[in-house]
Amino acid sequence: MSNSFGTLFRITTFGESHGAGIGVIIDGCPAGLAVDAAHIQAALDRRRPGQSALTTPRQEADRVQIQSGLFEGETTGTPISLFIPNADQRSGDYEHVQHAYRPSHADYTYQIKYGRRDYRGGGRSSARETAARVAAGAVAAQLLAQLGLTVQAYVSAVGEIELPLGYQELDLSLIETNLVRCPHPETAALMQRRIEAARDAHDTVGGVITGVARGVPVGLGEPVFDKLPAVLGHALLSINAVKGFEIGSGFAGTRLAGSQHNDPFYIDEAGRVRTRTNHSGGVQGGISNGEDVVFRAAFKPVATLLQPQETINDQGEAISLAGRGRHDPCVLPRAVPIVEAMTQLVLADLVLRARANRA
Amino acid sequence: MSNSFGTLFRITTFGESHGAGIGVIIDGCPAGLAVDAAHIQAALDRRRPGQSALTTPRQEADRVQIQSGLFEGETTGTPISLFIPNADQRSGDYEHVQHAYRPSHADYTYQIKYGRRDYRGGGRSSARETAARVAAGAVAAQLLAQLGLTVQAYVSAVGEIELPLGYQELDLSLIETNLVRCPHPETAALMQRRIEAARDAHDTVGGVITGVARGVPVGLGEPVFDKLPAVLGHALLSINAVKGFEIGSGFAGTRLAGSQHNDPFYIDEAGRVRTRTNHSGGVQGGISNGEDVVFRAAFKPVATLLQPQETINDQGEAISLAGRGRHDPCVLPRAVPIVEAMTQLVLADLVLRARANRA
Amino acid sequence: MSNSFGTLFRITTFGESHGAGIGVIIDGCPAGLAVDAAHIQAALDRRRPGQSALTTPRQEADRVQIQSGLFEGETTGTPISLFIPNADQRSGDYEHVQHAYRPSHADYTYQIKYGRRDYRGGGRSSARETAARVAAGAVAAQLLAQLGLTVQAYVSAVGEIELPLGYQELDLSLIETNLVRCPHPETAALMQRRIEAARDAHDTVGGVITGVARGVPVGLGEPVFDKLPAVLGHALLSINAVKGFEIGSGFAGTRLAGSQHNDPFYIDEAGRVRTRTNHSGGVQGGISNGEDVVFRAAFKPVATLLQPQETINDQGEAISLAGRGRHDPCVLPRAVPIVEAMTQLVLADLVLRARANRA
Amino acid sequence: MSNSFGTLFRITTFGESHGAGIGVIIDGCPAGLAVDAAHIQAALDRRRPGQSALTTPRQEADRVQIQSGLFEGETTGTPISLFIPNADQRSGDYEHVQHAYRPSHADYTYQIKYGRRDYRGGGRSSARETAARVAAGAVAAQLLAQLGLTVQAYVSAVGEIELPLGYQELDLSLIETNLVRCPHPETAALMQRRIEAARDAHDTVGGVITGVARGVPVGLGEPVFDKLPAVLGHALLSINAVKGFEIGSGFAGTRLAGSQHNDPFYIDEAGRVRTRTNHSGGVQGGISNGEDVVFRAAFKPVATLLQPQETINDQGEAISLAGRGRHDPCVLPRAVPIVEAMTQLVLADLVLRARANRA
Repeated sequence: MSNSFGTLFRITTFGESHGAGIGVIIDGCPAGLAVDAAHIQAALDRRRPGQSALTTPRQEADRVQIQSGLFEGETTGTPISLFIPNADQRSGDYEHVQHAYRPSHADYTYQIKYGRRDYRGGGRSSARETAARVAAGAVAAQLLAQLGLTVQAYVSAVGEIELPLGYQELDLSLIETNLVRCPHPETAALMQRRIEAARDAHDTVGGVITGVARGVPVGLGEPVFDKLPAVLGHALLSINAVKGFEIGSGFAGTRLAGSQHNDPFYIDEAGRVRTRTNHSGGVQGGISNGEDVVFRAAFKPVATLLQPQETINDQGEAISLAGRGRHDPCVLPRAVPIVEAMTQLVLADLVLRARANRA
Repeated sequence: MSNSFGTLFRITTFGESHGAGIGVIIDGCPAGLAVDAAHIQAALDRRRPGQSALTTPRQEADRVQIQSGLFEGETTGTPISLFIPNADQRSGDYEHVQHAYRPSHADYTYQIKYGRRDYRGGGRSSARETAARVAAGAVAAQLLAQLGLTVQAYVSAVGEIELPLGYQELDLSLIETNLVRCPHPETAALMQRRIEAARDAHDTVGGVITGVARGVPVGLGEPVFDKLPAVLGHALLSINAVKGFEIGSGFAGTRLAGSQHNDPFYIDEAGRVRTRTNHSGGVQGGISNGEDVVFRAAFKPVATLLQPQETINDQGEAISLAGRGRHDPCVLPRAVPIVEAMTQLVLADLVLRARANRA
Repeated sequence: MSNSFGTLFRITTFGESHGAGIGVIIDGCPAGLAVDAAHIQAALDRRRPGQSALTTPRQEADRVQIQSGLFEGETTGTPISLFIPNADQRSGDYEHVQHAYRPSHADYTYQIKYGRRDYRGGGRSSARETAARVAAGAVAAQLLAQLGLTVQAYVSAVGEIELPLGYQELDLSLIETNLVRCPHPETAALMQRRIEAARDAHDTVGGVITGVARGVPVGLGEPVFDKLPAVLGHALLSINAVKGFEIGSGFAGTRLAGSQHNDPFYIDEAGRVRTRTNHSGGVQGGISNGEDVVFRAAFKPVATLLQPQETINDQGEAISLAGRGRHDPCVLPRAVPIVEAMTQLVLADLVLRARANRA
Repeated sequence: MSNSFGTLFRITTFGESHGAGIGVIIDGCPAGLAVDAAHIQAALDRRRPGQSALTTPRQEADRVQIQSGLFEGETTGTPISLFIPNADQRSGDYEHVQHAYRPSHADYTYQIKYGRRDYRGGGRSSARETAARVAAGAVAAQLLAQLGLTVQAYVSAVGEIELPLGYQELDLSLIETNLVRCPHPETAALMQRRIEAARDAHDTVGGVITGVARGVPVGLGEPVFDKLPAVLGHALLSINAVKGFEIGSGFAGTRLAGSQHNDPFYIDEAGRVRTRTNHSGGVQGGISNGEDVVFRAAFKPVATLLQPQETINDQGEAISLAGRGRHDPCVLPRAVPIVEAMTQLVLADLVLRARANRA
């Protein structure tokens, strides 16, 4: 197990889907940040189940409790403990999977790795675990806000429905105006229908989330192993269902010539060093160059289907299994705040690490 | 700076392009592995410059010296130091970039982050640094070989030339039969011409490398933050020029329905738990499931062009700059052993970490 | 801040004296250990305040809640969260120290380091923080018990009252027979009177705790920096009020000749490799040699006095201050389980780390 | 194995007594420090064997090579590699110990832990390993010098000969005026005779080294686990032969009443917060308070004796063994720079870590 992430701004998460709750300890948050429960709660509300017709009907209020680390509304430099009690648990929904290895779930691998598993709701492998990440990310965001650094993410593809515009052509203030969290209303409508179609077919659908960090100072990223793309990729690939990560031009950029791909430097009107294009995605040599950090994460379709599937049980017997319980036909809309949170955590950590760069 | 990678099988690398040499310390390699210089040398020879008409003419013999950690041909459990002296240095080739910020290089970001930089050959940001990774990977490979675990990588795309077959349809023993390291001779020939065309145009070209790990035991990967895809992605995204990583179905998988994407379990003739498809890429819940681990890494085109480019210098003045020195028109062929090495290092570390899973 | 300890068996603690509570996350505990709340509670009861006439009258039931990581009474390999709510808080007791820098407390250093502090009960610098360590140690003890490894500690000095016998001459089953936790009843009686005298004088007294680990397998300790004495010393010196640590012959051994100090090897009747003496304290070359691991930790006298002391406030003004609140005249008796816990945590971690020693 | 130390200013050491050499990689040293080989060499010369009549006659020039990390005489923020080739090796001196378990050496524990060992000169367990620490400490010292922080150590006891004065009563500029490195000439003379007597008796003698760090800023140390005494103790207890560590009043302070031990705060003439006494040893709540950091380390007598000792071999047979080779009768004089180096490394790391304390 490895339930900690970060070097200086470091989180440790815990909790299962059907235990007492989900939580996170933030160790290394600098002293003097104003943080309150409402701020964290707002982030959690964007991730919580039951928030819309597109998500699982499981109703979790996801009320965060701040257990330590604040005094008179500010961080004290001591560890911050955030706890989110579980509320709407129905363990009975999972008895039918107690002995089953659900296709493309963690049942089999956890069983073999640990010799046992908490099968209720997926236990620790449940995406419910990401609530802790979102709560911690909200604290990291406060540190970044001091630097004028903001992170936004949005759904850029659902199944074969792709957003036809790049982030610079979009109005990101529209992200929250629809259930899908896509800043392009026409595409959002198509995506919503696509998700509903999957749901109605008792099937599921995947997609892509694009993230953008603006106001990133030059100098974040620690070569040669903790380059910004490496730690950001690590962070995002640790999210349930993420199967791919790319930054800047990514896979598409492999088809450009070097003369097309290079980002020429120039001095802008304000006298700042800038690049004319941003195929680099805001990172050169693994270090932020002051341009927007832009990246994409691929989410596979949800593995739990409300239709029968062939698989085996832990006795090696062939069985047929259909999901019960309450599940999302598409995790993308709820994954947007998770992507933002992991990005915020990465950047907060790199900001602190960069303080040690010069004598 | 962060020049260490791994938790238990842990490497620390050092060295610049134009200093005394490049090296790596492996700390945590278990005792009792047979390792010799010839084995490591063979891996380095696949990465070294000057090996073929497709690569930089810089001639580096890259002769590895084992400085510690072995006794009578076996590891002793103490740190293994591998050193590769630099030989064919021509610092004079770089005087013209002393004050320039080359497009899409690390010049600018290193300068701002550290307040100075070793401009000769890119200093620490040179891909020459990866020689140390390859040397260390060869030691990790010995540990994996004991388990019957093997790692292979190959070039699956050069620019728009894509290998039309999946790895299971290919004969991976053909990888080393051509300069490109593509196991499909017809495609390799096209790729070679594509690289030559870029070289002749004083331009460069990117591409994709596919990696496959076979014989991976069930249970590798440490949720929730050090899932196998997360640490593998971290490893690969820390390689110079890598802009994307995907495992299993990756980005393409986002367009499948869940009912298409799920990998049904079954029991094979040998009584082993298997999956009928492998969209998961050998990993479920972040933990290896015993299927082949399959992934892809996107390499952007080389930034150094032997043609003039517009950029600025460190005084903010617009300049025109053309690469001199000795450079690869395409890094893909030489990057194959680097991808293998990083994968070997990740898996060796996860193998050791998994020993702590059960009481 | 650094609130995590351990490499593979790793704890992260949080909480302040006068916040919601104190807690710990154990990450990396192997799956399959039987753990229950009663077991942990028994350890906490030995540390809790108000347990006897010799300790602070603050009444904290210190009831542990297990929030995650167990399933059907056994560890699952996922993080174990233990939470101990605070109950008997009287923040009003601390208003007089809000602006004072108490002598030999952490008030001044926290204020300067973090720019603020939670002054209620010492906030995070309170020894109440050690409750989390004791809870975690109880889980580590379960892992060690599987190996037949046991840890015991006892008070061997209170002020100038020193236990005249070595641990091998003592019956350690007597440790819990008196309030002082000294296994020599006559000396325990003297120590108790010494503590009472300090209390009656509104003063405090320090002392020494001796720890013994039996059944330690050969091979624990990771040279060259994580030698057993180094990590054990780290662990003990991180406990509030500890100012010294020695292992085996320690400071006294510096006065022996090498010919007296060396521990000759022999083969005992059972055919085991043993040493005739144990000046090494069970460790040679930083690695356990199978003999008992024996060490001592020095605790300074408690800094809070119920008598006036000269000091300054945060305005730099000279003030006179007397402790109020509820305080121990001597922490030694309650520190015994803390010493045991830190030792258990160190050994559990080294046990897991040693699994990676051989290929 | 664990051959790395430090969090941000982090060293990794390697090498054996009779291999190619000893080395260290410093990762995380900030950019912009002036460092040259002469500076490092001066530190090594104080540690090297053969420097005086009191030390082993093994002649090692210990010439350091800087292999990376500097450019034009300054650190660049990249890893610094320092290598010290071995020169005067006589492996033949060790054939008689190939199968022996020398008393109080690491032979037995390495053999069991790793299943083999490099017996030549103790291999990795040789104190020769500390040359790397000294070299790295010299770089750390440069960082500290920028802050006006200096570290000095001296021999305060050799066997039963104890320096009768505290460090504040001594003139530390006298440390290097005698072979023993004791700043009190009369005591130094006694100590020298004591060492010579041990040598002449083919025996060895231990002692104590006192360290003092001056100019330490308020705020170093990271509670609750990486308090300054905890990491400093860790560092010192990782040195060969160290069996004890104490800070400030240490073990002696356990015999004081709290009213005697507390260090009252006052404002000095310069308006600085100071304490009237320094029983705390410059640390309160685990964090430096601006007073001198004072500590002591206990070194056991050297285990290698030039007289016969009873022990066993790796077949379990009783044998008699006398040391050959070239050995110190007392390591204390040569250990002074090692103690300084480990202290410098700890403080440099804590200086960098403290930069993350506030938002």
